[in-house]
Amino acid sequence: MTGASAGPQSLVSSKELELWFEFGSNYSYLSVMRIEGLAARAGVRLLWRPFLLGPIFKSFGWESSPFVLQAAKGAYVWKDMERQCRKYNLEWARPTTFPRRALLPMRIALLGASQPWIGEFCRQVMLLNFVEDRDIDNVESASEILVALGLPAQEIIREAEAEPNKLRLREQTLRAADRGVFGAPTFFVQGEMFWGNDRLEDAIALAAAD
Amino acid sequence: MTGASAGPQSLVSSKELELWFEFGSNYSYLSVMRIEGLAARAGVRLLWRPFLLGPIFKSFGWESSPFVLQAAKGAYVWKDMERQCRKYNLEWARPTTFPRRALLPMRIALLGASQPWIGEFCRQVMLLNFVEDRDIDNVESASEILVALGLPAQEIIREAEAEPNKLRLREQTLRAADRGVFGAPTFFVQGEMFWGNDRLEDAIALAAAD
Repeated sequence: MTGASAGPQSLVSSKELELWFEFGSNYSYLSVMRIEGLAARAGVRLLWRPFLLGPIFKSFGWESSPFVLQAAKGAYVWKDMERQCRKYNLEWARPTTFPRRALLPMRIALLGASQPWIGEFCRQVMLLNFVEDRDIDNVESASEILVALGLPAQEIIREAEAEPNKLRLREQTLRAADRGVFGAPTFFVQGEMFWGNDRLEDAIALAAAD
Repeated sequence: MTGASAGPQSLVSSKELELWFEFGSNYSYLSVMRIEGLAARAGVRLLWRPFLLGPIFKSFGWESSPFVLQAAKGAYVWKDMERQCRKYNLEWARPTTFPRRALLPMRIALLGASQPWIGEFCRQVMLLNFVEDRDIDNVESASEILVALGLPAQEIIREAEAEPNKLRLREQTLRAADRGVFGAPTFFVQGEMFWGNDRLEDAIALAAAD
């Protein structure tokens, strides 16, 4: 009624939330499993931003996850994960390898970030890591998931592993660092950064209020 | 009706929550301001456990708060505090000195941990640090707060600074480390540890369900 500037298209495009995540990260698991439902209910468009946590931690001088390097925090985190999964009604098994390497599935997620299958692909990788306790950085696991989604697994894996896509993931990781990302999951809404699964609801609320 | 074992006294004593906190810690500020109201509404008895974060951090090889040592996380934390305080309807001013030394008020809090004035004393110290941006580790600030509460400030400060109470605070800090505390605030309910203001509601819920 008040003019074209408030049309449906501009409304939709401004309600956006970026999810920066990594398949090796246990708190990313909580957000990856929950975020599509929350975003859909709030009318918020989700932008998937896979990046590698390893190089970020290395830039701080850390050779692994702080949950591995700090014994007291590490001991706590697994108890916290149990309780959080119970709270959110998510399955959970503590991975026997942590953090798991996830280069191949991260590359696939980057390649498919704008595809309709991205959400389900990411959830399936997370379930493999944090419920089935299986390694995720191999062609077998990736194929299994992609085939189950009815996708051309071989083609996707070939393109994911091609040089341009590898480079793009390195660039995306540099961009994360440039934007101040220091852990995962991290959310951006209108340039504001939110760190950790505990802030997912706050980030969604800001995006929805936009 | 079913016997003396479920009498009111045993019910009360089992619904307990320990709050381990430090006046220099900004996330402790959020919990100290909120906890008495939440605990009262849930019928949970609160046990105040002041301890020193400095020696805990030193035991990890850190010379200061991780918010000082990690630049990216530090930059984020102040933005997060602004938003969290808005969410909880708390006043907030970023302290010009961080983390503030708090040895005297910590000793007073330990001395008064079971007194009826402990909650209000702790809130006033927190407001001085995180709203009024004033130093808190001095006799003037402590006296001002104690006198406003109608308490014998000089006596309390003398006893707080006496050798037995100083020793007790060091012992309490060692006990924190023994129990796996690695940051503040930390809550214990029935031997379960919860770390961070974000877990306050979960800890209260467990205590209330007891």
